[in-house]
Amino acid sequence: MKPIVQCVPNFSEGRDTEKIEAIVAPLKDQAGFKLVSYEPDKDYNRTVVTLIGDPEAMKEPLYLFTKNVRDMIDMEEQSGEHPRMGALDVLPFIPIADIDMDACVNIAHEVGKTIAERLDIPVYMYGEAHVKKGRKSLPKIRKGEFEGMKEKIKEPEWHPDYGKPAIHPKAGVSGVGARLPLIAYNIDLATDDIEIAKKIARAIRGSSGGFKHIQAGPVFLKERNHVQVTMNILNYKQNPIYRILETVKMEARRFHVEVTGSEIVGLVPLDTVKRSLKYYADVRGDTLPELDLETVVQRANADLLFRDFAVEKIIEAHTE
Amino acid sequence: MKPIVQCVPNFSEGRDTEKIEAIVAPLKDQAGFKLVSYEPDKDYNRTVVTLIGDPEAMKEPLYLFTKNVRDMIDMEEQSGEHPRMGALDVLPFIPIADIDMDACVNIAHEVGKTIAERLDIPVYMYGEAHVKKGRKSLPKIRKGEFEGMKEKIKEPEWHPDYGKPAIHPKAGVSGVGARLPLIAYNIDLATDDIEIAKKIARAIRGSSGGFKHIQAGPVFLKERNHVQVTMNILNYKQNPIYRILETVKMEARRFHVEVTGSEIVGLVPLDTVKRSLKYYADVRGDTLPELDLETVVQRANADLLFRDFAVEKIIEAHTE
Repeated sequence: MKPIVQCVPNFSEGRDTEKIEAIVAPLKDQAGFKLVSYEPDKDYNRTVVTLIGDPEAMKEPLYLFTKNVRDMIDMEEQSGEHPRMGALDVLPFIPIADIDMDACVNIAHEVGKTIAERLDIPVYMYGEAHVKKGRKSLPKIRKGEFEGMKEKIKEPEWHPDYGKPAIHPKAGVSGVGARLPLIAYNIDLATDDIEIAKKIARAIRGSSGGFKHIQAGPVFLKERNHVQVTMNILNYKQNPIYRILETVKMEARRFHVEVTGSEIVGLVPLDTVKRSLKYYADVRGDTLPELDLETVVQRANADLLFRDFAVEKIIEAHTE
Repeated sequence: MKPIVQCVPNFSEGRDTEKIEAIVAPLKDQAGFKLVSYEPDKDYNRTVVTLIGDPEAMKEPLYLFTKNVRDMIDMEEQSGEHPRMGALDVLPFIPIADIDMDACVNIAHEVGKTIAERLDIPVYMYGEAHVKKGRKSLPKIRKGEFEGMKEKIKEPEWHPDYGKPAIHPKAGVSGVGARLPLIAYNIDLATDDIEIAKKIARAIRGSSGGFKHIQAGPVFLKERNHVQVTMNILNYKQNPIYRILETVKMEARRFHVEVTGSEIVGLVPLDTVKRSLKYYADVRGDTLPELDLETVVQRANADLLFRDFAVEKIIEAHTE
């Protein structure tokens, strides 16, 4: 089996459709990996690209793509709501199947080094690929943003991991990293009372004593007219979806509020969903059979109350 | 209202009953606080004393007690299974009612300074009362134990907070601190399969991604012939008992194992129990009335499945 990674470059153009199309062109219709999506955001002035497949096959197309980004975006003129330090702002590799984190870290370093050498963009290694203390966290590296990096990069403790200690005049600097898949997961509460979502978020999130790898907050959905607990699950092995969902149900009971649904935003590894389906099968006293993706979706709708879920949301749907 | 603290000195003698009685004598029948218990452990060769009441009233008796400890225990000859760095090993103050953590920290510093000055025992401030980086954790300070402290205390970074940088030749050094109440809490599982307790402990404890302030492990109770998840709750406000109990029930469901009971070891602040009773009242749609201690015990037995619980286990039962 060839290794499968998810690669999610973010670049700092989210408005000019023509430019965006030209930038992502080298990533389209390539052998060995798939361009799953590219989602421009006008407010953010940023586009999030999702690739899935063999990282070896991604390398050359990624350099061509990054060259486009560098040549077509001028950070001196760019502005938007999302913090950014360069035209190619971040480029993380995420292990999905038949590859471990160490191998993803190695790939990130090879790609980071090559971007610096071939394209003259200084690169900071972040996440699991960080080498210098204090660089695991991307927001720490990016602090000061494009404008601030001009001086920051000259300080010895902020010299880049690859490339010279001076920003690329138009493209700034880039972060290249490796990390676990991050699951964006939201739970619907049948109430418009934001205070209830706030209290439940506080009960489950790591920063206030809850589950370590859960970031959570309250949100009111205007169009749907109810609140949600909105979350990132940073480690789905230690904090599986079913445990979060059941704990939220338990907390909601004291408010007499029903949990009516939940949703995955973006993509999810098959393993994440299967682990949680296993819990409900165990509770019922079933064994979980080998499931095709259609059946996984059906069961997830029933057991995990997923709405708007579909085979296309499962990463493995894009790997064959 | 006078402030109420719990003070839990641990001293390094757990075998010689006569000596133990003589040591604790100054703490008996004093005005303003109560000697709730002193529990010697032969294997540990250590005695844990529990005082409850007004910290002002405790001060002088604590100095007399510490003088006894210093004069009656020779650490050059002492040995036991529990790690220790001095005759008076630790002396923590814990806020219970009408006093906040800052005030407990101040009392700890006053007592620590006086012990060093009057009794010539070097004192390290730990827990919330720590002042030097790296001294919040008691095990870090105590590393090397009595024998190792002879040299360690001479290193500038390990100079004591109060007293000279040389151990007391017989009494070693002491830790004086302030911390939140720690709740020792165990949940009974109707199985003798230790693997199930291990898996559930892993799901809920902070070190493997669970609730931040929960330390948990599996244990098999020979005499009762079932397993337990045994826990310390380090912060009962962020990790209330009901949430731990309900999460353990939820995890146990996949193993088809019933949660048959739970128990508090040692003392528990009234507030801890009341907060959790409130959850079950909320779920039933009741309001929680003002409860006398007897009723708190009855409700805790019913809602929290407490066994062997009693009014005497509630700290506030000792404060009137």
